[in-house]
Amino acid sequence: MALLVQKFGGTSVGTPERIEAIAAKIKRYRDNGDDVVVVVSAMSGETDRLIGLARAISEAPPPREMDVLLSTGEQVTIALLSMALQKRGCPARSYTGSQVHILTDSAHCKARIQDIDGSRIQQDLQQGKVVVVAGFQGVDEQGNITTLGRGGSDTTAVALAAALKARECQIFTDVDGVYTTDPRVVPNARRLERITFEEMLEMASLGSKVLQIRSVEFAGKYNVPLRVLSSFAEGPGTLITYEDETMENALISGIAFNRDEAKITVLGVPDQPGVAHKLLGPVAAANIEVDMIVQNMAPDGATTDFTFTVHRNDYDRAIEVVRRTAGEMGAREVAGDDKIVKLSLVGVGMRSHAGIASTMFETLANEGINIRMISTSEIKISVVVDEKYLELGVRALHDAFKLEGPAAG
Amino acid sequence: MALLVQKFGGTSVGTPERIEAIAAKIKRYRDNGDDVVVVVSAMSGETDRLIGLARAISEAPPPREMDVLLSTGEQVTIALLSMALQKRGCPARSYTGSQVHILTDSAHCKARIQDIDGSRIQQDLQQGKVVVVAGFQGVDEQGNITTLGRGGSDTTAVALAAALKARECQIFTDVDGVYTTDPRVVPNARRLERITFEEMLEMASLGSKVLQIRSVEFAGKYNVPLRVLSSFAEGPGTLITYEDETMENALISGIAFNRDEAKITVLGVPDQPGVAHKLLGPVAAANIEVDMIVQNMAPDGATTDFTFTVHRNDYDRAIEVVRRTAGEMGAREVAGDDKIVKLSLVGVGMRSHAGIASTMFETLANEGINIRMISTSEIKISVVVDEKYLELGVRALHDAFKLEGPAAG
Repeated sequence: MALLVQKFGGTSVGTPERIEAIAAKIKRYRDNGDDVVVVVSAMSGETDRLIGLARAISEAPPPREMDVLLSTGEQVTIALLSMALQKRGCPARSYTGSQVHILTDSAHCKARIQDIDGSRIQQDLQQGKVVVVAGFQGVDEQGNITTLGRGGSDTTAVALAAALKARECQIFTDVDGVYTTDPRVVPNARRLERITFEEMLEMASLGSKVLQIRSVEFAGKYNVPLRVLSSFAEGPGTLITYEDETMENALISGIAFNRDEAKITVLGVPDQPGVAHKLLGPVAAANIEVDMIVQNMAPDGATTDFTFTVHRNDYDRAIEVVRRTAGEMGAREVAGDDKIVKLSLVGVGMRSHAGIASTMFETLANEGINIRMISTSEIKISVVVDEKYLELGVRALHDAFKLEGPAAG
Repeated sequence: MALLVQKFGGTSVGTPERIEAIAAKIKRYRDNGDDVVVVVSAMSGETDRLIGLARAISEAPPPREMDVLLSTGEQVTIALLSMALQKRGCPARSYTGSQVHILTDSAHCKARIQDIDGSRIQQDLQQGKVVVVAGFQGVDEQGNITTLGRGGSDTTAVALAAALKARECQIFTDVDGVYTTDPRVVPNARRLERITFEEMLEMASLGSKVLQIRSVEFAGKYNVPLRVLSSFAEGPGTLITYEDETMENALISGIAFNRDEAKITVLGVPDQPGVAHKLLGPVAAANIEVDMIVQNMAPDGATTDFTFTVHRNDYDRAIEVVRRTAGEMGAREVAGDDKIVKLSLVGVGMRSHAGIASTMFETLANEGINIRMISTSEIKISVVVDEKYLELGVRALHDAFKLEGPAAG
């Protein structure tokens, strides 16, 4: 008998029929003797409907009122799920974020959780009830309704699991776990039994959209074991924890990729201290996030070449900002390319193994794929290549590092 | 400069466009220098949509969860109206019932307001804000969301007006006031400038559906002046207060009628103490509300005839219950009729004037309308007649008591 926190997203609760199916699933866990706290999102489509109503009235709705509006989405779901559970003879009780004191700061539409008072939930659990909590929402110290921003329900679930010292925080999604890479690109990609928080963070931030980054960070920080599993099928999913003895001793856990990148290169910048700051300061000031950064001495030895990547949507704005700064700095040229992608090998195992990088570069070279940028961290090697090589590169690397699972049958 | 509490129902806030129109109207009051607290219902159709979702999951949804579900309807409206006000440069702030501590008992789906803490609202008003409060909902002492039952937004408005000592509680509806009778039956019916609480209660309970009875009772109890006026047009509407010197000295304020009645007569009940209780006890126990009750000695002098009316929807159940009881009591016969209507003259003026009743009976007799039952109170005379005479009767009485307004132009 253990305490589980289970989170179901908008697609999983998108219709009354799906809510009934989820209720049946929760009841099976309950019948197994586990205590269950459920966190749910708004029914799929509902948040967009509400945003549409707001936009019909105001182009820039005040964030406080936006939160009052959007928080109704989850409130509808908790009521319906609680009804479906009780219909099955499973005692249940719904709570809004405010009712269980999910205390946040006052940053409306992107609030951060500061504290949760679990006492009311503990009481209900002791009485054998399933507790159904609205995800994505909280309340600030003045009693104003806040929301955590889109996808915030994952964070709610992890925060509750931490506050209640749950054995696991289970995130139910439309995939049955975390894979070595996107199965749409590599059909024999393999579901991972386990993965570490650090690896998951790298995978998530590189575009594997299974989990919200913030919830993985949060889970890591409070050491809450996370499990990703399917809302619609049975199966153990993928467990995300800290590295331990029993873990598969794989060098590489997976291959992530990101199609949303664009790169900007400043050529022939006079080399002097503070180049990076001078170039990137105005970019940051324009609220553009920078991903990879690489700086190299130019062949002439007196200037430097500086390259960085941004989200493809920010490319036009970013290159305009950089052109201005580069001109002032006396740089020779600014070049850009928004037809690139980033491929990354991720794995805690690579820390203690040499040769990973050279295998990666050799594999890509054998396929005739030119590497435009390289960047490395403790558990990750990322390369930027032309967009057209995405599938070829991922498949070649997946093969080279023997990540494939049993042939699909 | 005065404090006004204004209530807008579901039709008045049924679309984003209507919400914008309401916001413009509220701003005009604000620009006149009045402080305004607004109470709103769910957008029309929204409550039914939510009930539909619940019914798709459970035939008998638990009332506590029903309240969590339904209360989202008003929460959407307060956010949207607050956005529309702020867009017009009118500072505004929305609150759920829970946020302004509309404390109720725990009778889910039909809770009663016990207390309101107006301090937070007062603070906002002092800062020049319009305060927008969700009608129909509250919170019990354990922090559970409650609802007051359909139409409860009127009650919320009156309760807030009482707690805040507002000068007036203004109920905006789709009619522009209270009329001497239904203008669909009598085209030259006249809008009343003023009417007393007692008269309004009689009018409302007799089927003039302008206001919820409970909110009128509430307003009378706390002496909150109520004003009924139109959401869509300009005009002073009708003010509902206690009788005072300046009131029009009319004998009759209006003619109410009710199509939803059915009558049941028990003939030849052996006359003995407790007849009424024996007959009506089982009816009450079956949760059937009884309206008019008339008892007469039968011609034989030893038995009594007993007649009462019920809502037409309860007719079949009621007559079955009565047949059983009447049989046990040795009554001669039970007869019923569900093709009847009730017509009522209402007016505080009739207290001090004889002859109203005889004028009424004479007027109906002149039209050949047979009176089936008569019942009187301090400020009302009601008669039951055959359904087919409804329009004829109402028009004849409206003429006889000279209630008509200026010819419509």
